[in-house]
Amino acid sequence: MSVSFRTARRDDVPAILAMLDDDPISAAREQVEGIDLMAAFDTIDADPRNELIVAEEDGQVIGTFQLTFIPGLSRRGAERAQVEAVRVAVPYRNRGIGRRMMEWAIDRARERGCGLVQLTTDKARHNAHRFYASLGFTPTHEGFKLRL
Amino acid sequence: MSVSFRTARRDDVPAILAMLDDDPISAAREQVEGIDLMAAFDTIDADPRNELIVAEEDGQVIGTFQLTFIPGLSRRGAERAQVEAVRVAVPYRNRGIGRRMMEWAIDRARERGCGLVQLTTDKARHNAHRFYASLGFTPTHEGFKLRL
Repeated sequence: MSVSFRTARRDDVPAILAMLDDDPISAAREQVEGIDLMAAFDTIDADPRNELIVAEEDGQVIGTFQLTFIPGLSRRGAERAQVEAVRVAVPYRNRGIGRRMMEWAIDRARERGCGLVQLTTDKARHNAHRFYASLGFTPTHEGFKLRL
Repeated sequence: MSVSFRTARRDDVPAILAMLDDDPISAAREQVEGIDLMAAFDTIDADPRNELIVAEEDGQVIGTFQLTFIPGLSRRGAERAQVEAVRVAVPYRNRGIGRRMMEWAIDRARERGCGLVQLTTDKARHNAHRFYASLGFTPTHEGFKLRL
């Protein structure tokens, strides 16, 4: 397995959307709305504190995640790196690709000088909890969400 | 009580740092390192997706929080608003100021068109959990952190 990582390009957006929503009906709906989502992609791409990353194997996009570097006054002014939208394409799961992705994300955060990496994961995803714990993360916080 | 809200200025940084760390020794240490933290302040201030807010009463800074607007491809490309570094100055606690702050934050996120407001809070802060639940937040996620 030779997985490589790079910043996403516009032509990766359909593959990323398919991973973000495995449900084929929702995935199709998102693609119909492609123009707005290209604007969202361009916003991420232009923001120096956001990086949308894809994992690639043999020229195929097989995973994705987004890093946001949040500046702050705590921790002596070090940024915190937040990980969102972590997905591995269904046929490539259970092969250690998620681990490679998160190790890459942690290295990227360290290289940038971040003091902390953080993420939230649904309480029902027990496998994900074990996975993040095995990478050294600790579940110290409650993650609250409010839909608008 | 007439609390008002505004974007923080450079001269608010000492008051914000004092609230971020109630422990007087750590607070003093942060102020010694004021130059680096002014650079961190300037970074937040210049970033169009970060807003450091202060709550004011009678010209006195009595509370603070930071909003980060995270762009993404999920939820039809709507930003998510993240709340960090929520503090009310010790003498002003238990007067409903935190509630006013979070209501203001939710309104700000809605006005900007965000699809979601999210935050994490330490698992030991049971009062905070009840507080956020009373504002409509649901604790659906585990919050994982990894210090670098």
